Amino acid sequence: MTVMKNQYQKQANREYQEKQKLAESISRYYRDKLRELNLKDFSRIKAYLESYLPEGNPLISREIIFAHLDFEPFTSFLAEDKEFTVVSGLNPSSPLHLGHKVLFDLLLFLQKLGANIYIPVTNDESYLDGKVASLSESRRIAYEEIIPSIIAFGFNPKKTKIFVLSDYPDIYNFAVQISKYVTNRYVSAIFGEGALDNSGKAFYRSAIQLAQILLPQLAEFGGVKQSLIPVGIDQHPYILLARDVAKKMKFIPPSELVFKFQNSLLNPFEKMSGSKPKTAIYLTDSPEDIRSKIQKAYTGSVSILDAHKRLGGIPEACSVFSLLYFHHPDNQYVDTIYCRYKKGDIRMDELKKITSDFIIEIVEKHKKAKEKVGNIDEFLLNKPLRSFL
Amino acid sequence: MTVMKNQYQKQANREYQEKQKLAESISRYYRDKLRELNLKDFSRIKAYLESYLPEGNPLISREIIFAHLDFEPFTSFLAEDKEFTVVSGLNPSSPLHLGHKVLFDLLLFLQKLGANIYIPVTNDESYLDGKVASLSESRRIAYEEIIPSIIAFGFNPKKTKIFVLSDYPDIYNFAVQISKYVTNRYVSAIFGEGALDNSGKAFYRSAIQLAQILLPQLAEFGGVKQSLIPVGIDQHPYILLARDVAKKMKFIPPSELVFKFQNSLLNPFEKMSGSKPKTAIYLTDSPEDIRSKIQKAYTGSVSILDAHKRLGGIPEACSVFSLLYFHHPDNQYVDTIYCRYKKGDIRMDELKKITSDFIIEIVEKHKKAKEKVGNIDEFLLNKPLRSFL
Repeated sequence: MTVMKNQYQKQANREYQEKQKLAESISRYYRDKLRELNLKDFSRIKAYLESYLPEGNPLISREIIFAHLDFEPFTSFLAEDKEFTVVSGLNPSSPLHLGHKVLFDLLLFLQKLGANIYIPVTNDESYLDGKVASLSESRRIAYEEIIPSIIAFGFNPKKTKIFVLSDYPDIYNFAVQISKYVTNRYVSAIFGEGALDNSGKAFYRSAIQLAQILLPQLAEFGGVKQSLIPVGIDQHPYILLARDVAKKMKFIPPSELVFKFQNSLLNPFEKMSGSKPKTAIYLTDSPEDIRSKIQKAYTGSVSILDAHKRLGGIPEACSVFSLLYFHHPDNQYVDTIYCRYKKGDIRMDELKKITSDFIIEIVEKHKKAKEKVGNIDEFLLNKPLRSFL
Repeated sequence: MTVMKNQYQKQANREYQEKQKLAESISRYYRDKLRELNLKDFSRIKAYLESYLPEGNPLISREIIFAHLDFEPFTSFLAEDKEFTVVSGLNPSSPLHLGHKVLFDLLLFLQKLGANIYIPVTNDESYLDGKVASLSESRRIAYEEIIPSIIAFGFNPKKTKIFVLSDYPDIYNFAVQISKYVTNRYVSAIFGEGALDNSGKAFYRSAIQLAQILLPQLAEFGGVKQSLIPVGIDQHPYILLARDVAKKMKFIPPSELVFKFQNSLLNPFEKMSGSKPKTAIYLTDSPEDIRSKIQKAYTGSVSILDAHKRLGGIPEACSVFSLLYFHHPDNQYVDTIYCRYKKGDIRMDELKKITSDFIIEIVEKHKKAKEKVGNIDEFLLNKPLRSFL
């Protein structure tokens, strides 16, 4: 009996150590990337920004926004109560999921601070990357699913311009002009040879994507200006390329704000991905789906309850806890759960239950808000691009 | 004195032989290309076509149209008096020249036989290839210069659709879909590595250009149909690529009609080029310019008059004679000049004089017709492309 018990204990210890390593590699990943890519730590700006946030914001306080390039001018805009410009797009290949919600929480937060927001919905990219069978399919997803879902977050139509790429082909002319500043050699150095598989992909990566980022600096939108691009760390190469081309074309290099990935349900080291349904909770999932997905999620707790109580859990390596961490608005509540989890004071089935309840609540709330979305036209960007450079 | 005379004679003989070689290489060039590219000789179709042409057409009778791929279906359309579809574009980097006139004479001839003609004016290509400093410059040239000049040839507005690429960006969506069927590997094999210098060029060559060619087969224009693309032999690779992609996309591979180059004024083995002003007579040139350019042109006649009388001239190696050959409507007149020139019965200064007079006459006539062109809108293609595939 003792032998068996020892064996279980050893196994639990091993399991715990593995999860600890995972947590460390996640934290190391962000630390290393920050250094490797010459990004700036957001902590100093964080303190400054919090003075503008009497009610606080979890994205800031929990360091989900963790790095930046050239954010400084925006602190002046805040001080002077000036409007500023933000661009952030997405790929319409599946309904929005909780990873998108992190981005839209961030955009909404920036809009409350004064941002005019441009949201390209890149159905050309979805199609070129083979994430959908046809351009029209991703166009349908964009209008029926993505745009109402975005609007449901509560954006201000006066300060939000959404455009679906296939319905804003004027951007082609701007991209043609941009392409002259980007060699394919450069593109393959940044994105790898695969980016050049076909010329549509290459043109998208090196020109259309940049045209989206630099769009607000065209005369039609008031001309050259400072702009801010919130991205996941994997999109940093686009920003580098955009900054380089911006300089050559006499635009202002866009600033970058980097936020952490919403973890995949199956592996906290990976990101939640719309094209891998098991990794993601969609904002369209039923309560049953959500419970079942959270039930199967990777956790930071060892599988034997006694051992969990003895060793405690590792919230940093837990896809379940990460859902609260990224989405629950109450800092004190999340802190309390964190401590109890770490000490083993909360059982995994309890954590799954309260997380499921919470996520179901926000998803159901989002569904209701989305149902109420009526005419989307006031959010759509229709301004023709006519002033060629 | 005899020694001197002998020396002159020898020199003249050498000159004559060189020009003969040049004439042979021009004729060999077309013969070899025909075989090398697996094109079909146009002579059989020529005989058939002439039965539809009581008044004859120099492009046919002089074999300026010399090769084809899949022209056969069009002979049936003629027999059944059916409309058919032709696409042929051009680069707006300079005013039209006599080389363009050959193409437009051909298009006009096809329109009289029943063709609906699509004319893409590719200012994106002009810009990407560095032929103009900006997209807006080539756009200006397109509207102020090229389009009125095209209309002045006498096209029927009901059967002619002209579009400037930068003002028809809807084509981007079609090109995105096409690009999935063309690998960059294929593009560089066809057009050389240089075609991939930047992604704009590569996307243009492999997708936008094909979108122009396949455009009339979209639902907006009545759906899948046989179409004919008249080209110079250097554009054959585009047709190959378009035919290949058409098959993959379930369009009908476009047919090809190949016409000979209007010779450069400086070298009959090269083609007249709008970006090399000394090689070309523009339809905007003044009578003085035309006289001066023809004065300086390369001829098929040796430089010593006595020797010319003795040896005769070589019209096939003569950039001056080629102007009559490509443009003079009267077969008998051109034949007579040809024979007299070959026998040395016409002096070079005479030939230059009558050619200058004739070219000045047609250019002045074209200028007058162009001045009378009013509103160009009825020729412009505005139909939005909405039915993604």
